[in-house]
Amino acid sequence: MKIEVLTIFPQLFETVFNWGVISRAIKNGIIAFESVDIRDFTDDRHRTTDDYPFGGGSGLVMKAEPIIKAVASRFSDDSKPHVVYPSPQGKLFDNKKALELSKLSHIVFVCGRYEGIDERAMSSIDEEISIGDFVLSGGEIPALLMIEVISRFVPGVVGDMESVINDSFFSDLLDYAHYTRPREVNGMEVPEVLLSGNHEMIEIHRRMESLLRTIERRPDIFLKHDFDLTDKKALLLLFKELKKDAE
Amino acid sequence: MKIEVLTIFPQLFETVFNWGVISRAIKNGIIAFESVDIRDFTDDRHRTTDDYPFGGGSGLVMKAEPIIKAVASRFSDDSKPHVVYPSPQGKLFDNKKALELSKLSHIVFVCGRYEGIDERAMSSIDEEISIGDFVLSGGEIPALLMIEVISRFVPGVVGDMESVINDSFFSDLLDYAHYTRPREVNGMEVPEVLLSGNHEMIEIHRRMESLLRTIERRPDIFLKHDFDLTDKKALLLLFKELKKDAE
Repeated sequence: MKIEVLTIFPQLFETVFNWGVISRAIKNGIIAFESVDIRDFTDDRHRTTDDYPFGGGSGLVMKAEPIIKAVASRFSDDSKPHVVYPSPQGKLFDNKKALELSKLSHIVFVCGRYEGIDERAMSSIDEEISIGDFVLSGGEIPALLMIEVISRFVPGVVGDMESVINDSFFSDLLDYAHYTRPREVNGMEVPEVLLSGNHEMIEIHRRMESLLRTIERRPDIFLKHDFDLTDKKALLLLFKELKKDAE
Repeated sequence: MKIEVLTIFPQLFETVFNWGVISRAIKNGIIAFESVDIRDFTDDRHRTTDDYPFGGGSGLVMKAEPIIKAVASRFSDDSKPHVVYPSPQGKLFDNKKALELSKLSHIVFVCGRYEGIDERAMSSIDEEISIGDFVLSGGEIPALLMIEVISRFVPGVVGDMESVINDSFFSDLLDYAHYTRPREVNGMEVPEVLLSGNHEMIEIHRRMESLLRTIERRPDIFLKHDFDLTDKKALLLLFKELKKDAE
């Protein structure tokens, strides 16, 4: 998979992708990454990428032409990339969108400054995607984030694909509590059931925790959840425990 | 404001914060930033921060003790930080939460790996915050994101506080379209009204665009929006234009 980022901070991506799963995926040749400096597509001596807005107002606006030219430079006879513009005006990013994008062979991210890009640059954009209802200074961190989430769905990037699928939100419910050694930390013990070796009970116990957390913290997700057999067994256990507590 | 990050990738933050608004805020002494290596709080020769989960399952779990000790090291007689754990199990992050956090004098972010941290480390955490319904490999990118959003609300970080307040989502509606020079790009013109010099008309036109975009793309936000006089004038203009189109 080819991932390219158009930005005025190309070095930021080069350094961040020295760490973590993306770094390994690049070294293993699973992901071909390139960051492209939008300033290389300006034609004035100062390599200007922004200017004052027509109609007045605060903040600068990114010029359309350098962006249009930078995007065009990514097209070849072999490859027509899907061009994504991270923007708070876009459709909300989630795991479903990430899975969909992970199946493409070539994606280009255009990082604007959030004061805005000239509307005419939108003629080069296929899709505007928002990562949430908050304002950042630019599209760089949203692009980093989307690249990490998307990459995890590309086969071979995360060694253990099972862990990607088990993770929160992919199975819709929130994650259960995790414990590792030692058995006791500052007087806090690992729950007995996890030491029992009874794998079915462990699975049901964990699912019960996931259901409880989801009910308490994200009822919106609970209402959308499809119940499987483990969920139903976990609900039986939960009612049994609540009844015991009530007695 | 003091911001600290506990992570196994401390250099990642040092390099990213060489760019953009955070870099300036650090240089100007408005934000004191430090990244702390969780490995410095392990006590084995291999500086191990993770281990296999009790009860089995895929993925490793971050050990509780190094995290508890690393958080404790950030407390002093002068400063009791607010400790945030970026996690998909948390409350959703938005501009309101960012504004609230921007008023604190000392925040510590604990970056776990999303396979999970030992539940007992939660005894050191004040608040779990999620940036959205997607799975990442670790808390580093969510921490970067929250730090950028929060910092923008700290007075002096963004030169033009007006632009922070005008930005999308702070005023609830999506942003309007922006245009800068030149007047014509690949045959696409700047809308006449923006060249008119009539500031009231420009404001109403922009608000009309914001309303239209919000209705089309994020009706959830439109339904929560409180209408001011400019909104009502923009709606009048919108109905007039729609009526003209229909004729």
